[in-house]
Amino acid sequence: MEEENLKLIESTLDEVLPRADERPNILYEAMRYAVGTGGKRIRPLICFAAAEAVGGKCEDARYPAAAIELLHNYTLVHDDLPAMDNDTERRGQPSVWAKYGEANAILAADALLSLSCRVLAYAPRNIRQLVETLGEKGVGVVAGQVEDIAATGDIAFIYEHKTADLFMAAAVMGGWAGGGSVDEIEALREFALNLGLAFQYQDDLLDDDSPWPRAETERRAAESTAVALKALERISGDTSRLRRIAMRLLGRKI
Amino acid sequence: MEEENLKLIESTLDEVLPRADERPNILYEAMRYAVGTGGKRIRPLICFAAAEAVGGKCEDARYPAAAIELLHNYTLVHDDLPAMDNDTERRGQPSVWAKYGEANAILAADALLSLSCRVLAYAPRNIRQLVETLGEKGVGVVAGQVEDIAATGDIAFIYEHKTADLFMAAAVMGGWAGGGSVDEIEALREFALNLGLAFQYQDDLLDDDSPWPRAETERRAAESTAVALKALERISGDTSRLRRIAMRLLGRKI
Repeated sequence: MEEENLKLIESTLDEVLPRADERPNILYEAMRYAVGTGGKRIRPLICFAAAEAVGGKCEDARYPAAAIELLHNYTLVHDDLPAMDNDTERRGQPSVWAKYGEANAILAADALLSLSCRVLAYAPRNIRQLVETLGEKGVGVVAGQVEDIAATGDIAFIYEHKTADLFMAAAVMGGWAGGGSVDEIEALREFALNLGLAFQYQDDLLDDDSPWPRAETERRAAESTAVALKALERISGDTSRLRRIAMRLLGRKI
Repeated sequence: MEEENLKLIESTLDEVLPRADERPNILYEAMRYAVGTGGKRIRPLICFAAAEAVGGKCEDARYPAAAIELLHNYTLVHDDLPAMDNDTERRGQPSVWAKYGEANAILAADALLSLSCRVLAYAPRNIRQLVETLGEKGVGVVAGQVEDIAATGDIAFIYEHKTADLFMAAAVMGGWAGGGSVDEIEALREFALNLGLAFQYQDDLLDDDSPWPRAETERRAAESTAVALKALERISGDTSRLRRIAMRLLGRKI
């Protein structure tokens, strides 16, 4: 099942990204390079599972799932820039700016963000809510990044926005695309907020750079996961896939 | 009338932009600084006039008009970056990166682009078409910029995408927001494509850096304006405001 959803997101991304043989080739090549193939695609998987949880089909969420993955990848491209983290590598490959130059990296990421907005037009329903969610969380993730750079030390704000906002966008958009009720979508939002926090705590543990002692971070990760799972009880449909994603993220080793 | 529309766009931009006293302040301050106040707002005025031309109200187009102005301003912020044009000034003031630093400028512009998507959610109708148009032209304007940087010499491609795409987005979105027919929207698209080209030729004349001899550029500007005005004949509503905008752009001195 998971396998099928991974295929669905890869084929949807391939469908919506401009062909690399169109002009200007370098732009479309850089966009495709930035999005890559065969990644974990956590946010799209959450989006699909959320649609399913409210009684929709995964297929309903394919364009919102692509939108959130495009948006996520644009943030990575800009994060890697010399003026930001100055990373020359990502996923063991040259970062986009290292490969295509700084100007093309800035622009390719910009185009990914515009494309993420465009693909929502192909969702089957609730486009207004989808656009509002993607737009709101798109601003939110930037706010988290700015706060992180400013080094204010407000970890709660940074974790909520820099990490959890895109998890929330994924789950909430999946809910809207799948035809969920307002109550179900609120439950999905709470699930994803806490899943996002758990993901970030887990990330800190894996990178060994948590702002708290290790045991405290582990406690936070487990607690957030518990709150996330609890939120799912307010959804009457099949939430098993969302539960599996949550458990896997908590136990992940990379 | 024009005065009223300028007030409408300024108040709408002020309404949708985050308050500068919210956190992270520097982000919201930089976003507001980038958008400015009291500019010419050519694209929003086209958007309003297009809504009116198809029998809608200017009010119908206020959020699409804000969207196109936000998108336009994000492109300027990224164009000014050291990795791009390296401009320390814009409109006689420090450019966004010169004032707020490079990282904040990249991020503030990113947030403007996400916000431009979000505000479409508040349009009164045809959100699917609005999202598709903004997204398509948002990718297009980047393609024009990449081609310009690549210095391929394909002026037609660059002018169409770098300049005319956002004019087209403004007119077409105004048409959709105003409830226009498919034929009217096609006429608006043709109007705006040619208006955008005329605008660019006029820009070249004002900056004295046209790729053609002066007389040839003047001929192109007049011809494109004529084609633009001709396209309006296919619209049955009141196109007088669109005509006035076209004539003013052709005759402008700055």
